[in-house]
Amino acid sequence: MSWVPESAGSLFDVHNLPYGVFSLGGSARRVGVAIGTSVLDLTAACGTQRSPHTALFDAGTLDPLLAAGPATWRAQRGEMTGWLTDPAAADRLARHLVPRADVDLHLPFSVADYVDFYASEQHATNLGRLLRPGQQPLPAAWRNLPIGYHGRAGTVVISGSSVPRPRGQRWVGEPGSRVALTATERLDVEVEVGFVVGTPSPRGSSVPLQDLTDHVFGVVLVNDWSARDVQAFEYVPLGPFLGKSFATSVSPWVVPLAALEHARVRPPVRQPRPLPYLDDTDAEPWGLDLQLELRVNGCVLSRPPFAGMYWTPAQLLAHLTVNGASLRSGDLLASGTVSGPAPGEWGSLMELSWGGTRPVRMPDGSELTFLRDGDDVVISGTFPGPGGGRLGLGEVRGTVLPATG
Amino acid sequence: MSWVPESAGSLFDVHNLPYGVFSLGGSARRVGVAIGTSVLDLTAACGTQRSPHTALFDAGTLDPLLAAGPATWRAQRGEMTGWLTDPAAADRLARHLVPRADVDLHLPFSVADYVDFYASEQHATNLGRLLRPGQQPLPAAWRNLPIGYHGRAGTVVISGSSVPRPRGQRWVGEPGSRVALTATERLDVEVEVGFVVGTPSPRGSSVPLQDLTDHVFGVVLVNDWSARDVQAFEYVPLGPFLGKSFATSVSPWVVPLAALEHARVRPPVRQPRPLPYLDDTDAEPWGLDLQLELRVNGCVLSRPPFAGMYWTPAQLLAHLTVNGASLRSGDLLASGTVSGPAPGEWGSLMELSWGGTRPVRMPDGSELTFLRDGDDVVISGTFPGPGGGRLGLGEVRGTVLPATG
Repeated sequence: MSWVPESAGSLFDVHNLPYGVFSLGGSARRVGVAIGTSVLDLTAACGTQRSPHTALFDAGTLDPLLAAGPATWRAQRGEMTGWLTDPAAADRLARHLVPRADVDLHLPFSVADYVDFYASEQHATNLGRLLRPGQQPLPAAWRNLPIGYHGRAGTVVISGSSVPRPRGQRWVGEPGSRVALTATERLDVEVEVGFVVGTPSPRGSSVPLQDLTDHVFGVVLVNDWSARDVQAFEYVPLGPFLGKSFATSVSPWVVPLAALEHARVRPPVRQPRPLPYLDDTDAEPWGLDLQLELRVNGCVLSRPPFAGMYWTPAQLLAHLTVNGASLRSGDLLASGTVSGPAPGEWGSLMELSWGGTRPVRMPDGSELTFLRDGDDVVISGTFPGPGGGRLGLGEVRGTVLPATG
Repeated sequence: MSWVPESAGSLFDVHNLPYGVFSLGGSARRVGVAIGTSVLDLTAACGTQRSPHTALFDAGTLDPLLAAGPATWRAQRGEMTGWLTDPAAADRLARHLVPRADVDLHLPFSVADYVDFYASEQHATNLGRLLRPGQQPLPAAWRNLPIGYHGRAGTVVISGSSVPRPRGQRWVGEPGSRVALTATERLDVEVEVGFVVGTPSPRGSSVPLQDLTDHVFGVVLVNDWSARDVQAFEYVPLGPFLGKSFATSVSPWVVPLAALEHARVRPPVRQPRPLPYLDDTDAEPWGLDLQLELRVNGCVLSRPPFAGMYWTPAQLLAHLTVNGASLRSGDLLASGTVSGPAPGEWGSLMELSWGGTRPVRMPDGSELTFLRDGDDVVISGTFPGPGGGRLGLGEVRGTVLPATG
């Protein structure tokens, strides 16, 4: 238990300790750790404590920590846990606590490559039914491999960044009719979880399932904003492009994999059994019991359960590298939209409004199909900690602005 | 005319002056400019000349030059041209010339996002005929917008890097039959041209056609290596992924747009006329008369003409940003495979061997469909300079290694 006020039993208990980058009133960026309702200024605390890890936090970004690798991740987390649970350290460290409400949060690491998967069977099935009615809803290779694509790393933005409604070419009226450049009329969210790579791997080698924790540092929440009409017009045959590339928001607190120990669960049984490089039947399980929540203007629209995802992060990583593609520190692997079997567990408006045909009635009496200017979107998440408590992933938020230009 | 020996009239005449990054026998990396058969060590020459641009070249990468923007690009090129054409400067500068044959060349800039387009009508038509026989060969939106997707920036490698044959899941036998993880049997090349972004643009804004030269610094040759069997198995519905992400090779010399003045030609007439943001009918023309060449083991397989590309780099940039996606310094926009109407102008083995059904007879008597272990692939290119001469884009080279693992 930590001496930090309001931490014990909270979502940011000492068993969580996610890392972020903050500034105070325009000051230089510093690395911090969320605990209770505070942020511990790690850049300052390491100095006070004469920590061997001080140099990792000088640059005001998580990049050096990510690149330092798993032995350092363990040692630094252990050291920090020691400080925060040792009442004798409180005198020296309390002055490095800042109220979380007072800080400005920044993109915590440099995104190298951003890859987005499609790992929820329910989401892929729903989208297949909506977009290709009358056909098999799952793409042919879906159960053979985690389908994915590269997104735009340069437009990954921190929670709180506003999202101007993007323009794009689309059908005006029925498909096959007139084409125009307009603001999207089908702006959507995708509730996702992102895995942040720390340790690189060389080109020409593959990362086996069991090496996940050597390479992946931690987890963020992701909102993969999508313009469905733009995407529908452009995506054959090379996949989503401008329908996705205008913005992808991530949560500010990177929860280390080490904090997720009690969230690990067996993934679903896969049929057919995957090829050996993806077969985790006899491996340590990497299903994760993350309970997500999607709110628009404060109203809870769904609670997608990550535990049911067909493909685990270990499988995403093994597949991404099976062709010899290298990993870089800062690579971001997103899960794809998380959707469970029940409608209250679907992670996109495309599904929740069934392609816009079944509006969601909002508390203010309005009907929601796709996002409207001014809508405020929040994705949050929690997971089991030790002793039956719950810990938090924080939240990723964004507000839709009117189209410009 | 330059005082540098063997430069006048060569592909690396003083009218070209492409930038690269080199080292000599393991020394620190330096920025250089190719001229004749030499490299001018810019990092050193700027010091000798007390140039105001010295700081741009200290880091041994083109990144600071790219970020400096068009006014600096013009000024620095003007200054350098002055040195190289002023016989009085020869005494001071000749000692900063290094034989090009002696240097090691490196990836000249940090690749931010890598985007690959599909801008050749002939290539898209050929691929459509091969992959979707009996259907309209061009995808529905193809004449409305430049179709493209994001590739893996982390596996963009410098010319000369070897390319281990990648593994991937694919059909063994007919589509729909058994699936296995094997080394690709359909390793291909794609002859492309890449445009290197210098000046960034903010998220939420678009770059109009006429602003190309404010943002794009220069041009490289690209080999977008492709595993056709892996790609065919995985690409529905999110596009190419592991079939492309194992390696993309670029040429070492970035030719500034300013050197391409005499290569600019009118692009083909587009029918239907594109929407206004893509309509270049009354704009300065950005078709480019780049004459490319594909050689395998020294044998010329084709000479793809870039001049016939349906979409110009100005249109690629305008489309990429029309949804408000930001640009970063180091973004790489590749054209997609360049193919002309004649079979001797096709830029991939998929086309040249017509899906593997019409092997190419090689000078050694062997038959080539897709690449074999040990095959050496070279893409080179030239373009018109002033006074009827030709200038060079250099070359991008790679050798196929056997699969590992």
